[in-house]
Amino acid sequence: MHKLPSRLLEQAVDELAKMPGIGRRTALRLALWILRQEKEDIGILGNTLIKLSESICYCEQCFNISDHAVCGICSDPTRDRSRICVVQDVRDVMAIEQTGQYHGLYHVLGGVISPIEGITPDELTIEALVQRVAGGEVKEIIMAINPSIEGDTTTFYIYRKIKDMYMVISTIARGIAVGDELEYADEVTLGRSILNRVPYESSLRG
Amino acid sequence: MHKLPSRLLEQAVDELAKMPGIGRRTALRLALWILRQEKEDIGILGNTLIKLSESICYCEQCFNISDHAVCGICSDPTRDRSRICVVQDVRDVMAIEQTGQYHGLYHVLGGVISPIEGITPDELTIEALVQRVAGGEVKEIIMAINPSIEGDTTTFYIYRKIKDMYMVISTIARGIAVGDELEYADEVTLGRSILNRVPYESSLRG
Repeated sequence: MHKLPSRLLEQAVDELAKMPGIGRRTALRLALWILRQEKEDIGILGNTLIKLSESICYCEQCFNISDHAVCGICSDPTRDRSRICVVQDVRDVMAIEQTGQYHGLYHVLGGVISPIEGITPDELTIEALVQRVAGGEVKEIIMAINPSIEGDTTTFYIYRKIKDMYMVISTIARGIAVGDELEYADEVTLGRSILNRVPYESSLRG
Repeated sequence: MHKLPSRLLEQAVDELAKMPGIGRRTALRLALWILRQEKEDIGILGNTLIKLSESICYCEQCFNISDHAVCGICSDPTRDRSRICVVQDVRDVMAIEQTGQYHGLYHVLGGVISPIEGITPDELTIEALVQRVAGGEVKEIIMAINPSIEGDTTTFYIYRKIKDMYMVISTIARGIAVGDELEYADEVTLGRSILNRVPYESSLRG
């Protein structure tokens, strides 16, 4: 890394390099780009980031990012209120929404239980989920937490909390991705895809 | 790209995606990272970028980035004031400084002449360079502008402006990079490296 000719530039590189996936070399490139922009434009950039950090809200029902107390999905009267899809974070909501295949509600946990990282169940929104389910309107909970030791632990923890509440608890299907070749799939995924095979007719949907 | 659940988030992604090399997907990842940080830390990030944009100075002699009216290199009494290395932008100064092989001064043009991009000679610091040279202290001008049609045009334009001013005008050596293999070098570079061959003894330096 080159020695920088200015303290201001150095501070900016230090700050930019804190962002994930941005090394010091990229940070320097971004800082030099900032120097070539209009002051007003960088004012907008800086203030937009600050405003995002200060003013963002989370939906008080599903904990998705929202500009209002209740998010667009939870307040949409056309959504199926009898289904809740439980996900790890807001990116998962966006990914599932993108498919256009799901019309129920969501519940964003805000992470997974992780003893190593010191994340305990009460730091997640699990208790709020149990409260929502206790309302009685919900007929199905779809667990869509990423598969990992922590993710599977979290799924099982939630399963134990709600299994006696008279509703269907499902998980999203794991299997060979559409377009992938069998010979390159890992054994666990291929094994699950055989165990959880579906009627041919249902594979013709979507 | 997923539909975003919040206007604030969308604005932040729009702003971040204006940065070079940052696509909308990366911008979203950065915006979601911002949401997980402390408000104070993002305040520092945003304000550092604004301060960089608002308060950065350029050295009034060489036009390098500087915290003062005259930069650290120009004000260093140990530097050889009889040589000026002419470069396109501040990154080139950093790169040459990093080598530790040059102890003269610099002159940052701020770009190259480019009719296509509408950059004319008077938008660069060429006139200031001519003034510096006219001072009479300078014995050598080292042209270190990147080789391209625009770069070579700029080098030639400057050469014509200063060629009658009784000093050595040199360009940095072009050749096979140290560590590169001859068979993979392009013809022009390999050709120039033969034409501009140097005595074996001088290749033993550095």
